Amino acid sequence: MKSRPPRLFVESPLKAGVVVQLTAAQAHYLGTVMRAGAGGGVALFNGRDGEWSAVIESMGKKTGRLRLSAQTRNQEPESGVWLVFAPLRKAACRFIAEKATELGAARLIPVLTARTHVRGINTERLRATVVEAAEQCGRLTLPPIAPAAALADLPGQWPATRELLFLDESGKGAPIAEVLASMKKTKGKAVPLAVLSGPEGGFSAAELDWLRKLPFSTAAGLGKRILRAETAAIAALACCQALVGDWT
Amino acid sequence: MKSRPPRLFVESPLKAGVVVQLTAAQAHYLGTVMRAGAGGGVALFNGRDGEWSAVIESMGKKTGRLRLSAQTRNQEPESGVWLVFAPLRKAACRFIAEKATELGAARLIPVLTARTHVRGINTERLRATVVEAAEQCGRLTLPPIAPAAALADLPGQWPATRELLFLDESGKGAPIAEVLASMKKTKGKAVPLAVLSGPEGGFSAAELDWLRKLPFSTAAGLGKRILRAETAAIAALACCQALVGDWT
Repeated sequence: MKSRPPRLFVESPLKAGVVVQLTAAQAHYLGTVMRAGAGGGVALFNGRDGEWSAVIESMGKKTGRLRLSAQTRNQEPESGVWLVFAPLRKAACRFIAEKATELGAARLIPVLTARTHVRGINTERLRATVVEAAEQCGRLTLPPIAPAAALADLPGQWPATRELLFLDESGKGAPIAEVLASMKKTKGKAVPLAVLSGPEGGFSAAELDWLRKLPFSTAAGLGKRILRAETAAIAALACCQALVGDWT
Repeated sequence: MKSRPPRLFVESPLKAGVVVQLTAAQAHYLGTVMRAGAGGGVALFNGRDGEWSAVIESMGKKTGRLRLSAQTRNQEPESGVWLVFAPLRKAACRFIAEKATELGAARLIPVLTARTHVRGINTERLRATVVEAAEQCGRLTLPPIAPAAALADLPGQWPATRELLFLDESGKGAPIAEVLASMKKTKGKAVPLAVLSGPEGGFSAAELDWLRKLPFSTAAGLGKRILRAETAAIAALACCQALVGDWT
């Protein structure tokens, strides 16, 4: 296996000759975890300028400097599915952020539901997870993490063309593969899509009624077994990518 | 939400009037975690006799006794997909066992590959994870965990009718949805299926060549992003269930 150079997300603009100062965390990752030193190669992306190769000019324990050499990938448009999710306990939330990033989710939107016991999320920690997952999986963007909002406020900010596929544990949703196939058939091509996954314990009956009536939403089922909330979210994202997303 | 009674996997045969002695771990779970006491209801399954309701007759810190009342579900045949996977570090292995159980995997088969750095797995700990996941997700069976074997020994014990879908990171596999759709089309109905997922770093080139030549195997791709090994395994299982499994 030809080993890939370590990959880093940076904020700075990327163009030939630019010098990037590493943060302490980046220097630790490159120098200590990846054992890279002066002269070594790194791949950089910032979500806007594609991917660039860079050379390590200097490396200390908490500092370091890279110089960009050449662009190796163009920035490409990404049209990934959004994930709207009820925040879960810390490990499960981190899991969702990591796996959703790997699976190409384009936006992470926490919503508070009747049975959401976690009232807030640590966006900063979640973003660190997203950055690490994006670096590892080779994507060129980070999915932004929206501020947590009440489920009831979702329609007010919802784009007209995006379908919301909500995971209905009541058994009343059509199988997810059917829902996705019919969306594709109706529109002739993949539509902008979002998955909505509930909290542990699921949506309340009132929420399910309300969700069914939203003009942009469709209920989808994931079989009869009771999936953990984070499992359902990730399984649904995988199905979306496989059936109407960029795995096709 | 009507709360479901706690669910326990037990080894004993299940029939009316049978008394079940709890293990210390089960007593802890029921009494301390679920705060159930004498008179409370429990649901039991053993992988063979369906699901039964039982009543707690006595409950101590480390002991307890249940008496079975009535069968509430019949044992049903399950024809889930098998998961053949290269063992990963502890947390990822646990993750695979938990999520695969929730997703209905019928058998877990660890295989050692060229780049598998974990040389053994703790089957007992993995089984505890499987039991807990089966209890929580409502299924009536536990997926057995096969002893770890070398990848090269897989064909010697492989059932003739089961297709092996291996996750090919080289980009040469057809998209997973296509592979699954063509299997269904060819055979007219869902075929017995297994997913094979590789270690961190993927299969070696020699292993990929060898896998492509196996008469029962097909390469499948999960897009261009580099998924962690455990993410790929779980995403593929979700696709199998959604497209040819029991979510359809």
